Amino acid sequence: MKPIVVKKFGGTSVGDLGRIRNVAKLVRSFKEENPDKEVVVVVSAMAGETNRLVSLARECVKQPNPRELDVLLATGELASSALTAMSLQEEGLSARSFDGYLARINTDEHHTNAKIQSIDGELLQRFLATGGVPVVAGFQGVTPSGDFTTLGRGGSDITAVALAAALSAEACYIYTDVEGVYSADPRVCRRVRRLDRVCHEEMFELASLGAKVLHPRSVYFAMRYGVPLAVLSTFNPTRKTWIVKEGELMEKPVVTGVTYRLDDIKVTVSGMPTGGDALSTLFTELADADVFIDVITQSEAVGERMNISFTVPEESSDRVIALLKNLLPRLGASDYSIDRDIAKVSIVGVGMRYHAGVASKAFAVLGAEGIATRMISTSEIKLSVVIDRKYCEVAVRALHDAFVELEPGTEITVGAEK
Amino acid sequence: MKPIVVKKFGGTSVGDLGRIRNVAKLVRSFKEENPDKEVVVVVSAMAGETNRLVSLARECVKQPNPRELDVLLATGELASSALTAMSLQEEGLSARSFDGYLARINTDEHHTNAKIQSIDGELLQRFLATGGVPVVAGFQGVTPSGDFTTLGRGGSDITAVALAAALSAEACYIYTDVEGVYSADPRVCRRVRRLDRVCHEEMFELASLGAKVLHPRSVYFAMRYGVPLAVLSTFNPTRKTWIVKEGELMEKPVVTGVTYRLDDIKVTVSGMPTGGDALSTLFTELADADVFIDVITQSEAVGERMNISFTVPEESSDRVIALLKNLLPRLGASDYSIDRDIAKVSIVGVGMRYHAGVASKAFAVLGAEGIATRMISTSEIKLSVVIDRKYCEVAVRALHDAFVELEPGTEITVGAEK
Repeated sequence: MKPIVVKKFGGTSVGDLGRIRNVAKLVRSFKEENPDKEVVVVVSAMAGETNRLVSLARECVKQPNPRELDVLLATGELASSALTAMSLQEEGLSARSFDGYLARINTDEHHTNAKIQSIDGELLQRFLATGGVPVVAGFQGVTPSGDFTTLGRGGSDITAVALAAALSAEACYIYTDVEGVYSADPRVCRRVRRLDRVCHEEMFELASLGAKVLHPRSVYFAMRYGVPLAVLSTFNPTRKTWIVKEGELMEKPVVTGVTYRLDDIKVTVSGMPTGGDALSTLFTELADADVFIDVITQSEAVGERMNISFTVPEESSDRVIALLKNLLPRLGASDYSIDRDIAKVSIVGVGMRYHAGVASKAFAVLGAEGIATRMISTSEIKLSVVIDRKYCEVAVRALHDAFVELEPGTEITVGAEK
Repeated sequence: MKPIVVKKFGGTSVGDLGRIRNVAKLVRSFKEENPDKEVVVVVSAMAGETNRLVSLARECVKQPNPRELDVLLATGELASSALTAMSLQEEGLSARSFDGYLARINTDEHHTNAKIQSIDGELLQRFLATGGVPVVAGFQGVTPSGDFTTLGRGGSDITAVALAAALSAEACYIYTDVEGVYSADPRVCRRVRRLDRVCHEEMFELASLGAKVLHPRSVYFAMRYGVPLAVLSTFNPTRKTWIVKEGELMEKPVVTGVTYRLDDIKVTVSGMPTGGDALSTLFTELADADVFIDVITQSEAVGERMNISFTVPEESSDRVIALLKNLLPRLGASDYSIDRDIAKVSIVGVGMRYHAGVASKAFAVLGAEGIATRMISTSEIKLSVVIDRKYCEVAVRALHDAFVELEPGTEITVGAEK
């Protein structure tokens, strides 16, 4: 069996028929230049199609049934996989679309957010052995009874990485509309660095902290199964970012990248009793309500009372407010408040493990800009600060200037992104 | 097990979200009024969707691969089945979409024109037993290896009738945008009769001869498996046409309906030798090229030479011309000609079996209008004439006036159709 590579093309890469034909040409070139390798293609739905289908369902009924929504959503990737297979055939390749059932992507029954349980790669392997190029519909799987499921956000990336793991592929290439992973958002920083290599842990933090190029779940999969992963542009695939094991990093800059998130709100519960089980009750109730808690900070106690603050995704705002209204008396707390105008800015880098003084330098940089930190959170390889939203861009630029070295030849200027 | 009815809704009936909700209300009303019956719903793709997908494929590549085209086309009915199931749930019913795989509609591998080999109704039966309403995606099936197939023209009607047969349903209702089968096309005849009952044989002839309300293949299925079939309007389902066994017809009017086809061309091969195997060679070659031959007429021989004329669907025109060019020398024929400006007008009725003089009356009617017949073809229950296309409407009206009795209360006037 020849070595296998998985190539995943996102919604923008298959955004119209011209782009689908472009993908087909790209795959044909790769096959011509690499006759000793087999290729598995994974495609997303054409850009905008999934949103269109979700809107259609919501326009049809108030609460679309998740199982039926999955049938509807699955059609997006089915269509693009069929059109891509046709285009590959037009390029002279033996191609064939595989849906979640044919690719044997077996998931649990958690519709609209299913988890892959197993992949039986035998059918794909058999087709690869004939020299064929399978085109797998991303984002979808099937339950044991044969119902379509979808994998939630970042689903097609997860399909690609999971297939690469199941087929013991030598690499998984994620084709998108940017030329890799940058040291900061080029829309915010005038000059950024395209990263040649980042390690899984950094990428996981970068992805979780706001870099939208890869979904954290797919990075987690790649890390867990040791799949070498690359991010590159369909439209200019000459450069790429490799996501590798930490040990494979040649250099370990202290700070790899600076990211930001604007999707969170800050919740403060005031007058909490310092003793007893108020704190554990609060976070148990939030967890039971499926609220994802990010940064938590606690004020110094005044007497037997303290304030507790935490950030949650803006989309769970209504749930959190409803829960707190009921919970305040049980907690013995006096009040709660919500601050929506926040930003979380993070600096990430495995080198931080080996360097002291990153935090103090970061605070000095922010202080020099007159930016007050509202919350602080650290891990071994990242430092996050919650600040007023209006200072977000200033903070990103200042931290990027202070921590990320731009080497000649690796820096790019704004305009490469859509 | 309660008696089952199958209700199939065509593309216009599920043409937009409002109409899909209308279908859901119609099914809920039926369930409320018939608590002793189970319903299986079959849906087409939303009106225009299949054509849109075919165009997309043709725009993408010159010759779409049939297997991939089927994956693409299958998405049309998948989407409408999911949206219809959601809408039924909104109406308080337990509904669930079934694709070709889940409904176990097993076909051969003849992509884009597959034939149903078997249906295993067990999964559907099990869901029906829970009081559920399955919504089956019409027009599609799966091959033994799990590839999507589509059933060709009239596919969703065939799905419905085949399911009705497999589930031993007591009836199959085809909901469309007309209130049944008419004695002639209301766009041509000012006053036509909606037929309360026609027999399978008549409907098969009517469908084959141009009445577009039902595809001949589905009528054939209903006839073969004895499925009682009704055609009615989604938008005013109070009246319908039953397609029944001939023995169940209460009255047998001589002529049930008048139809026409404009989709054929007339081919004439001149100077054919009268003896030898020229004739069999010609039609064997045409059959091998999958050309569907309809009416055949032969001129009187002059010496050892004769002319042979036949009609074929316009869409096979190119193939026929290419074939004849090669074949003329082998046949020993002198030339061929094509007449595209023809119409085939037919009168149909099982009563014709028991009545002489239908042909002579028809020729008299046409003669009185000054219309020359170019070809004539008869069967036990129909008479077809090929005439100049420009006289088509005049001929249909004259024959309808002469043969079809309009009883008070059953006649309708133009405007009921889209």
